[in-house]
Amino acid sequence: MSDYGHIFPLWRAAAGGAWQRYTGHAFVAGLCDGSLPRAAFLHYLTQDYLFLIHFSRAWALAVTKAETPDEMRICAATVHALIDEEMRLHVKTCAEAGISEAALQAAEERVENLAYTRYVLDAGHSGDFLDLLAALAPCVLGYGEIGARLMRAAGETPYADWIATYGGAEYQQVCHGVGALIDGAVARRIGDAPQASARWATLCHRFTLATRLEAGFWDMGLAP
Amino acid sequence: MSDYGHIFPLWRAAAGGAWQRYTGHAFVAGLCDGSLPRAAFLHYLTQDYLFLIHFSRAWALAVTKAETPDEMRICAATVHALIDEEMRLHVKTCAEAGISEAALQAAEERVENLAYTRYVLDAGHSGDFLDLLAALAPCVLGYGEIGARLMRAAGETPYADWIATYGGAEYQQVCHGVGALIDGAVARRIGDAPQASARWATLCHRFTLATRLEAGFWDMGLAP
Amino acid sequence: MSDYGHIFPLWRAAAGGAWQRYTGHAFVAGLCDGSLPRAAFLHYLTQDYLFLIHFSRAWALAVTKAETPDEMRICAATVHALIDEEMRLHVKTCAEAGISEAALQAAEERVENLAYTRYVLDAGHSGDFLDLLAALAPCVLGYGEIGARLMRAAGETPYADWIATYGGAEYQQVCHGVGALIDGAVARRIGDAPQASARWATLCHRFTLATRLEAGFWDMGLAP
Amino acid sequence: MSDYGHIFPLWRAAAGGAWQRYTGHAFVAGLCDGSLPRAAFLHYLTQDYLFLIHFSRAWALAVTKAETPDEMRICAATVHALIDEEMRLHVKTCAEAGISEAALQAAEERVENLAYTRYVLDAGHSGDFLDLLAALAPCVLGYGEIGARLMRAAGETPYADWIATYGGAEYQQVCHGVGALIDGAVARRIGDAPQASARWATLCHRFTLATRLEAGFWDMGLAP
Repeated sequence: MSDYGHIFPLWRAAAGGAWQRYTGHAFVAGLCDGSLPRAAFLHYLTQDYLFLIHFSRAWALAVTKAETPDEMRICAATVHALIDEEMRLHVKTCAEAGISEAALQAAEERVENLAYTRYVLDAGHSGDFLDLLAALAPCVLGYGEIGARLMRAAGETPYADWIATYGGAEYQQVCHGVGALIDGAVARRIGDAPQASARWATLCHRFTLATRLEAGFWDMGLAP
Repeated sequence: MSDYGHIFPLWRAAAGGAWQRYTGHAFVAGLCDGSLPRAAFLHYLTQDYLFLIHFSRAWALAVTKAETPDEMRICAATVHALIDEEMRLHVKTCAEAGISEAALQAAEERVENLAYTRYVLDAGHSGDFLDLLAALAPCVLGYGEIGARLMRAAGETPYADWIATYGGAEYQQVCHGVGALIDGAVARRIGDAPQASARWATLCHRFTLATRLEAGFWDMGLAP
Repeated sequence: MSDYGHIFPLWRAAAGGAWQRYTGHAFVAGLCDGSLPRAAFLHYLTQDYLFLIHFSRAWALAVTKAETPDEMRICAATVHALIDEEMRLHVKTCAEAGISEAALQAAEERVENLAYTRYVLDAGHSGDFLDLLAALAPCVLGYGEIGARLMRAAGETPYADWIATYGGAEYQQVCHGVGALIDGAVARRIGDAPQASARWATLCHRFTLATRLEAGFWDMGLAP
Repeated sequence: MSDYGHIFPLWRAAAGGAWQRYTGHAFVAGLCDGSLPRAAFLHYLTQDYLFLIHFSRAWALAVTKAETPDEMRICAATVHALIDEEMRLHVKTCAEAGISEAALQAAEERVENLAYTRYVLDAGHSGDFLDLLAALAPCVLGYGEIGARLMRAAGETPYADWIATYGGAEYQQVCHGVGALIDGAVARRIGDAPQASARWATLCHRFTLATRLEAGFWDMGLAP
């Protein structure tokens, strides 16, 4: 497992079985061995397009809550990567499958999708930069972990592009950057012994809840 | 049907079948004729306690987005009514059923619950006062409509207290106040022909989506 | 000096000379001995009316950022007290001086006023509940401290009503409540040794900056 | 005068004399003919560095309040341009004058600066996307107008770089893009006759107040 810094593995351990349920989900196994039905994948891509809109909004919210120019810069670069690269990729992949961008935008958000993105946004609005990062981390870093594992494990699968996106060097670098952002942000606000701090349980709770919502997103993916 | 002003019936009509699915839900029928299982009701009350916390936060957000002292005053009074009266009532009812306030606070929020309250909060953060009111209205005014109908229709039912709360004069007055707040806020921001305005579709969409999420909340209530 | 709990005196000490400049300002001395020109007082009251609108919004924002029902309840009660009592008092006092509520609402916010309230709101939006409380504290508790001191020190002065408002038992109780809210919120989020925490300097900075802005508000009061 | 679209000239006209006071300020005249004291310029640059941090946060907030992927994209690109280009330019210019980035970050925000940026952020938090754009527009488009005028008018001046930055093709293109963003956002939310809409006065008020705060910023620039 990739660690992407010091804090992420602590949060991941705190999430316990929820992390396994997310990263070892049947949807992921289906991407790996190619058994995932195409309809499920396209349904997932459509919902994920809507997800990315609101997830980009959450990273933009992080820019407004950062305390240093460097924190701002990394969050702004992530917004840019999500809007200008990851969303474009979804549009392209969906277009190849006959789903237009207009259709993507008009799709009805499923409740599992609404719950997840709006929870992350609310983590930011109700808390501070760390609360928001703890809710953003499971998606960004979990996809990195899944991608890296599937790069090594996958056989012949129609989902090789998806795997290459998240397992590839560029996305892995994003994950290392976000891991370092989290480490620095925690050190700056909680100090060197974060696990001993009064806030630790709250941050772990946010990470774990977002992890549960990720697993729910895969569940939804399997039920078009 | 109660109209609670001019705008609410227009939004309700725009929601179409979603409004019927919400206000005519099997959960509501079960409250009316007493056939709702006690376990479902207590499960609903527990989730509704968590709902009220975040719904109160959304009304507090409305205070921050109001444009006149009168708008602020009505929203602040609603926060007070929710926190100091409605939540207290839930705590009391649950305590009588052997569920402590600590247990209420520790309950895990269901995804249908998360999706609803966080969507409402996000409507406020992403839009203006009207966007927030359109997302708040289905709960407040739908409960008023259901309560008033069940006051007339209900026979012997163990849920008479619930019905009396929302069908009673005090809550009906809250609904008339909120209806007037909406009418005034729309007139102030969109003018006299709101249905012709460019924003109308967006507001109707927010109202309809919140209505769908209310129906999902009843679904959840039936599936403890 | 009143202490209103454990954290406030620490923040006050951290603010150093800025606290003296605020609470020992010539405007305050003029309220105490009655030498403050009536025009300055009415100018201050008018700006303070606008201040209270945005300060109430900031307390409402605190409701949205609280983590416990008790935190929510105290913040909501403060919103209510500000909107329904303190603002009403301003309206009444101004009306007696021939300034209508419409004139109050139409007054142009001075830059010192804008800077202060919008800084407090931004402290809440960019940070968490503690960041907001640290920015709210100087006004609430400083007025308590000034009021209590002037109750003892004031001679014959036309500003006896103002002094009685903030020096009186009711407002002093509010201050003790807010002091306890701060103590509890700090303990919950930073633990028992807040001065050793990485966040302490940031919180002291927020308190000190809001204190500076309070002194600027008095400066503005003297320059109608 | 450049028009940068349809809505901006209407807002500019509504601002009346405040617009002249801003764009025709003595500070601007001093940039143009080179008579501005170096100390005033460096003081301005230092405060403007802090301004850009919070102005970038406001554009990031706009990403969270956009309704279409295109609106998001333009706002995100603006955040990027501000953080990665304009702020870097300030750091470079200040470094050449012996002011380090650490000194920039440690500088005390002046009240005129606080009032302006926090007002813009609050316009976004209390209103919707349009409220925020109306508060953002005077800075972006006013600098474009000033830059374009000074490109034609300036003689020998040590501030030629500043003039070239805002009068140059790249920044002028940004202004045309922001003007188009505003036109589209207004059409989408208010329709084809915005001046007849109930919201028009509020939007003009936001634009005018931000314009006043811009003039105050120049005043501050002249008073190091």
